[in-house]
Amino acid sequence: MPGQIKDHQRAGDSVRGATTHLAGRADQAAVRRTNLALVLRALRGGPRTRPQLAVDTRLTKATVSSLVAELAERGLARTHQATSQGVVGRPGQRVELVGERVLALGLELNVDYLAAVGLDLGGVQRATVRTSFDVAGRGIDEVVDRAGTVLREVARKALASDQTVLAGVGVAAPGLVDVGRGVVRVAPNLHWNDVPLRDLISTRLARTFAFAGHHLEPAAVAVDNEANLATFAEFSAGSDADDRDLVYLTGGVGVGGGIVVDGRVVRGSAGFAGEVGHLAIDPEGEVCGCGRRGCWETLCGLGALLHLAGAPDDPIHDHERDLDERLDLLRDRARAGDKRTLRAFDQIGRALGFGASMLINLANPRLLVLGGYFARLGEFLLPAVEAELAARVVAPELGGARVELSRLGLWAAATGAAYAALQPLLDDPTRVPATSAATVPASSVSRVTKTPRKETG
Amino acid sequence: MPGQIKDHQRAGDSVRGATTHLAGRADQAAVRRTNLALVLRALRGGPRTRPQLAVDTRLTKATVSSLVAELAERGLARTHQATSQGVVGRPGQRVELVGERVLALGLELNVDYLAAVGLDLGGVQRATVRTSFDVAGRGIDEVVDRAGTVLREVARKALASDQTVLAGVGVAAPGLVDVGRGVVRVAPNLHWNDVPLRDLISTRLARTFAFAGHHLEPAAVAVDNEANLATFAEFSAGSDADDRDLVYLTGGVGVGGGIVVDGRVVRGSAGFAGEVGHLAIDPEGEVCGCGRRGCWETLCGLGALLHLAGAPDDPIHDHERDLDERLDLLRDRARAGDKRTLRAFDQIGRALGFGASMLINLANPRLLVLGGYFARLGEFLLPAVEAELAARVVAPELGGARVELSRLGLWAAATGAAYAALQPLLDDPTRVPATSAATVPASSVSRVTKTPRKETG
Repeated sequence: MPGQIKDHQRAGDSVRGATTHLAGRADQAAVRRTNLALVLRALRGGPRTRPQLAVDTRLTKATVSSLVAELAERGLARTHQATSQGVVGRPGQRVELVGERVLALGLELNVDYLAAVGLDLGGVQRATVRTSFDVAGRGIDEVVDRAGTVLREVARKALASDQTVLAGVGVAAPGLVDVGRGVVRVAPNLHWNDVPLRDLISTRLARTFAFAGHHLEPAAVAVDNEANLATFAEFSAGSDADDRDLVYLTGGVGVGGGIVVDGRVVRGSAGFAGEVGHLAIDPEGEVCGCGRRGCWETLCGLGALLHLAGAPDDPIHDHERDLDERLDLLRDRARAGDKRTLRAFDQIGRALGFGASMLINLANPRLLVLGGYFARLGEFLLPAVEAELAARVVAPELGGARVELSRLGLWAAATGAAYAALQPLLDDPTRVPATSAATVPASSVSRVTKTPRKETG
Repeated sequence: MPGQIKDHQRAGDSVRGATTHLAGRADQAAVRRTNLALVLRALRGGPRTRPQLAVDTRLTKATVSSLVAELAERGLARTHQATSQGVVGRPGQRVELVGERVLALGLELNVDYLAAVGLDLGGVQRATVRTSFDVAGRGIDEVVDRAGTVLREVARKALASDQTVLAGVGVAAPGLVDVGRGVVRVAPNLHWNDVPLRDLISTRLARTFAFAGHHLEPAAVAVDNEANLATFAEFSAGSDADDRDLVYLTGGVGVGGGIVVDGRVVRGSAGFAGEVGHLAIDPEGEVCGCGRRGCWETLCGLGALLHLAGAPDDPIHDHERDLDERLDLLRDRARAGDKRTLRAFDQIGRALGFGASMLINLANPRLLVLGGYFARLGEFLLPAVEAELAARVVAPELGGARVELSRLGLWAAATGAAYAALQPLLDDPTRVPATSAATVPASSVSRVTKTPRKETG
């Protein structure tokens, strides 16, 4: 349900600049923008009546009505008569977000693939594109060129109509990113140093998106670390507005993840925060790829699982096979009761739970989300994870934390990049021009993962 | 230098309510309060000229001048001619904070003592009181009564003049606190459950502070967890405004601490965050007081140190002696080159560094502050701590983190409580009435740890 998307910032976070400015110079346009943003963010929590919006935003009803009218002109909201489904009193008019008016694109550059997502303002994934590509082995120019092609493809698939506004493009990279300058400082697995990715992609996109018929603003490109963006996606796509504290852990060759504190991804003073895979769990343990011993990922990364689950000649070690296929093999064995597989899952689950207990003790999240292969094999890992958490977490009942499996799968980083690209527009809805008619035309989207809502106007 | 106190909130954090309100209703008084708060917070960063303040606050120079005049009327700021110490250009008038106009009190309730601090607006500790008291063994009423006595004593010592305004009282408790309601939910070491400490102390203080001659508003009492408040104090007292990410670790019988992310103490969804002492470092290790095995505090808490450093009949185990005295004994032995002591310090330092590396990998702080006995024996522990960090932290050069020893010592929690009590006034400087003359009278403080600045007016 797109209406359940959480507000990424508290009301007011977006108004700092505006307020100060305003207070000094009484800039009414800034106040208006601020208030439009407040109402738009409130609508992302789901349809509501004007009086409800007034309460949510602490604005007067008259102001809310005027703001809703402006959002409707810009094609971002519409009003419909609520049916009275068992509700006492007369049905009121409810205002709802028009998600399809705005599209954001998210791209993940990884070692051997590119993945792109088109996400609308309501958080609905409208198109996806994924392509194998030797990012680590090609020159930067070639990578950027292919990125442009992939983004163009996902945009074509996702654009709902010629009234759709492109909010921006987010890019997730597997390395340390200077977010302010959009530069990938170090990406060891790509052999990249100081690559000005934002500028390269912007230049490429200026060309890519020069096709007619869409309100395509010069696309704002934002670059960030893929683990941060995946964490942001898991937070943003969560269904409960109260889940403002979250720990995300994803299993692959390494173990990655991130921490959300009160709605913000923890980045640390130099952008190095959330380095979960190399927590020193077992100082006497196996040597890790990083050269240290007993890092957490040596205990529950993919290598540990495959080592525990099968002899060297077992087909699960066959790199020619797709990873998903090999994991399916393990799942089938577990379902058939294979002892070695079940023991391996139990051991991996315990190691995962052991480390996760530390994160819960430190961050006291409401939600622990497991992604990557942890999610794919979740049904088998969860019992051991939960037993370990119950034994290791100090706070009663895990301090209120729930454990959930990610549903974003391989799309987490690209989806997070798209969510990040939506932010500037959420801060300033006047970036979206008025529609030519005051209605949004029927969707012409070529692939949607969710049916757009019916038009009312 | 009191002027180096950091801004606890970013400009704008305090204006959320005001903005929304304002935007709907154009409440000029709210704007004024907001802007006064902006200027006051800027002045806590040190003296500056009006043009500098205009840049810091993004207000116009005219507005800044008017706000500075109002702060001066309220006795919170004064202007003085800057001497030109090698500065090019003509010396300008600089505005500085008048710290002694406002006093906040902080109280720590712990198992066997009460400690109180009087802190002025500039962060200068103006008085301290500490008394042994069997908090755990006495009834709540008796504890509250003694707390009132201690607070009255520290207030008498710290009040600079009859123009001093009492901003509020903060209380640090060793347990899980419902901060909103001011209730200590569980304090195992005090055997407390659901104690409405805020209301009890408020009621007691209404009586305590009924002595004449001071502008003593009904003291706003705030209760919070002692580790959170100690962490907040270490953050607030830090000298560098860029240190917005910090990890604090304090050694005692247990190991406590907290994490500051972007200027805010991480509390978690239910207030359980920062539970560092029970990180599961060694699952095969010693049994901890919590019943689990190998918790971090079994490896570097005071018990581990004393066990490693001396045989059972060694006087360092003599509970009749003051702890400081016993630690001094160990320090003297280490200085004399005693092998067992040095080995113990090395082992404790390694265990401390091992766990601390995890916190640095997760939070990427700018500063790791060691408090409690870690600070007292810091000179001996640091080499091993730093060696372990260098080996275990993934980010190059510790991700930019420095390691420092706390200078707040036993006063960290009470100081943090006082800092917390200053916050409402920092959000709304109009809580401070205009002075009867437009100057602050000479200090009549009976004990100050820093000499108040000379009056200019």
